Amino acid sequence: MTRAVSPSDAATLSYEHAGVDYDLIDPLKVAAQRAAAATGTHLAAHGFREVTASRGESAYVVDVGPFYLASIVECLGSKALVADEMHRLTGKSWYDSIAQDTIAMAINDLITVGATPLVVQAYWAAGGSDWFGDAERAQALVAGWKRACDTCRVAWGGGETPALAGIVADGRIDLAASCTGLISPKERLSVGDELGPGDAIVLLASSGIHANGLSLARKLVERLPQGYLTEVAPGFTYGEALLAPTVLYSPVTEALHHAGIRPHYCANITGHGWRKLLRHPAAHTYRIKHVPEVPPVLRFIQQHARQDDREAYSTFNMGAGFALFVKAAEAQKAVEVAQAQGVAALVAGHVEAGAKKLVIEPLGIEFGDDALKLR
Amino acid sequence: MTRAVSPSDAATLSYEHAGVDYDLIDPLKVAAQRAAAATGTHLAAHGFREVTASRGESAYVVDVGPFYLASIVECLGSKALVADEMHRLTGKSWYDSIAQDTIAMAINDLITVGATPLVVQAYWAAGGSDWFGDAERAQALVAGWKRACDTCRVAWGGGETPALAGIVADGRIDLAASCTGLISPKERLSVGDELGPGDAIVLLASSGIHANGLSLARKLVERLPQGYLTEVAPGFTYGEALLAPTVLYSPVTEALHHAGIRPHYCANITGHGWRKLLRHPAAHTYRIKHVPEVPPVLRFIQQHARQDDREAYSTFNMGAGFALFVKAAEAQKAVEVAQAQGVAALVAGHVEAGAKKLVIEPLGIEFGDDALKLR
Repeated sequence: MTRAVSPSDAATLSYEHAGVDYDLIDPLKVAAQRAAAATGTHLAAHGFREVTASRGESAYVVDVGPFYLASIVECLGSKALVADEMHRLTGKSWYDSIAQDTIAMAINDLITVGATPLVVQAYWAAGGSDWFGDAERAQALVAGWKRACDTCRVAWGGGETPALAGIVADGRIDLAASCTGLISPKERLSVGDELGPGDAIVLLASSGIHANGLSLARKLVERLPQGYLTEVAPGFTYGEALLAPTVLYSPVTEALHHAGIRPHYCANITGHGWRKLLRHPAAHTYRIKHVPEVPPVLRFIQQHARQDDREAYSTFNMGAGFALFVKAAEAQKAVEVAQAQGVAALVAGHVEAGAKKLVIEPLGIEFGDDALKLR
Repeated sequence: MTRAVSPSDAATLSYEHAGVDYDLIDPLKVAAQRAAAATGTHLAAHGFREVTASRGESAYVVDVGPFYLASIVECLGSKALVADEMHRLTGKSWYDSIAQDTIAMAINDLITVGATPLVVQAYWAAGGSDWFGDAERAQALVAGWKRACDTCRVAWGGGETPALAGIVADGRIDLAASCTGLISPKERLSVGDELGPGDAIVLLASSGIHANGLSLARKLVERLPQGYLTEVAPGFTYGEALLAPTVLYSPVTEALHHAGIRPHYCANITGHGWRKLLRHPAAHTYRIKHVPEVPPVLRFIQQHARQDDREAYSTFNMGAGFALFVKAAEAQKAVEVAQAQGVAALVAGHVEAGAKKLVIEPLGIEFGDDALKLR
């Protein structure tokens, strides 16, 4: 995956070209993870203990006795830059959509461990007081944030709206959300200890790019004849398509609980695309027999970035926003529960004994154990 | 408080000159608070309920049955700009200090409602991958964060380290922390319903400016002959003095609990300085008989910004970082408990029946009901 930079129009545009250099970030991440791991024992002073298996998972879990406590902080990333540019081009505010994206980043991670999200806190750090002077944009942000909380039935506890001139770029905003939830009853905890051969892989549909891969999607604009206003389908621009808000999956995981279905494991398909299906630390083979329909915007990106399927599926969600690993006997019912919540789903494959790899049979792609390094 | 801008060297430098215009931010804040308040009822769907009195307090509280859950997100603000400038001037990294400040912003707010902080999540959003390439600075950030977690005996659950080129300014970092805690036993909840006449006001010492008022402190540098390297005391520069890390008060509130002292109310003295003593919504008179020693850096700022006491105490903590409102009979013991944790404290005054105001007798200052509008 290390290639010459400066891609021409004819070359593949991969994530490495898009300006995020994980080689620089990873040493800090590793140091932070080690230091963080050493603090888990502090909980004993308060009569509690961490669920150590949650380290390296998408949310951190503490055993507080009658239930587990789960918490997380997540940021939107660079999708706000697309909203800002589309506002410039169309005059419309897209902040209601990216508010939902921001909450989705936190909620969809929190639910992977089996938690019911209860409280969201807003972190909206602007490049100066002036940002808040655009009342239409500010109201759109509030309205979208509220609507996403309503969809997920979480309480919006409050938050922080600092004006950080000199730290956040002038005219921009850094959007993030923290989320706290409970895993109750405790049997709902899903950190993967029950995942095993025979389990089915159910994929929940995405609405588009969600909020991962935006650096590449923004880079691609340079290649498009009309930039963000290039049509991906008649009357539907690239910019609009990118800004479809991320699906909120907590209504599905809550409905699964009420239907008596307890996932053995969950993976939120975000950065690293389908390689996130390899998230669980154990050695299993994940065999995909059916792939979901690819949203037009992702097919469009794949074509214009000249990515082969391997590159595309290792970068984008390609139509699968969230993966549930459930008992085979419950897979079809899980699909029905998701669809009753308005989220398309399919039984895409299964887990089997074997070397750690992901095999996407319909596309002839394999990702091995070395494809995803998160721990 | 609205004066002509463009202060000359002879003029008072007030917070309004420092570039944060609350008139622009407040309409969004009000809209967000209203929308947020309407989401509290969602908790019933999960069998829980919000503690409505916590809306408008420093942390949001949910009744989850056996105990209360408290959560918050807070940011450092512009203190990182001081650290960056001091690094340029001295070659030393100050990120261990501002890591502690960031955690203090969250922890010191969370404990006001009676919570034991359990989990901190790190939010470190850099202006690009390059930020993380400075290994010394990155390691200082990790080390300071870890040490603050150790001091507060909280678990560092994880976090987010995005590279946000185009959103966060090049070479800068936006530092924030979210924190989750429990209020257990439930009697520890302190949202002020027991606050009343006769209660003592115990003030816990600050270490300096903490992380509030930095916009003004940075603006002041323009007036100083040697900028950040101007001495506030022999061998002790203004920049160093500003970067003294914020005191972490959770060891004190935990020790108070173990000593059987339950504050009726707490106020974290941050933005708006001593006006935060008026935080509680009820009408009481707060009478201060003794003021703590003013840290040299704050006395220095007051002098060079040509602020009178009224302006200084309405902007900075002036030596009081945290206020405990306790039964009069427990006040002296509360002081001893704090001092046993290494935090200087004094019984500064008391609450009495009367119009809502703060009277700082030794300085001849009063702040009325209109001095603080947070709700």
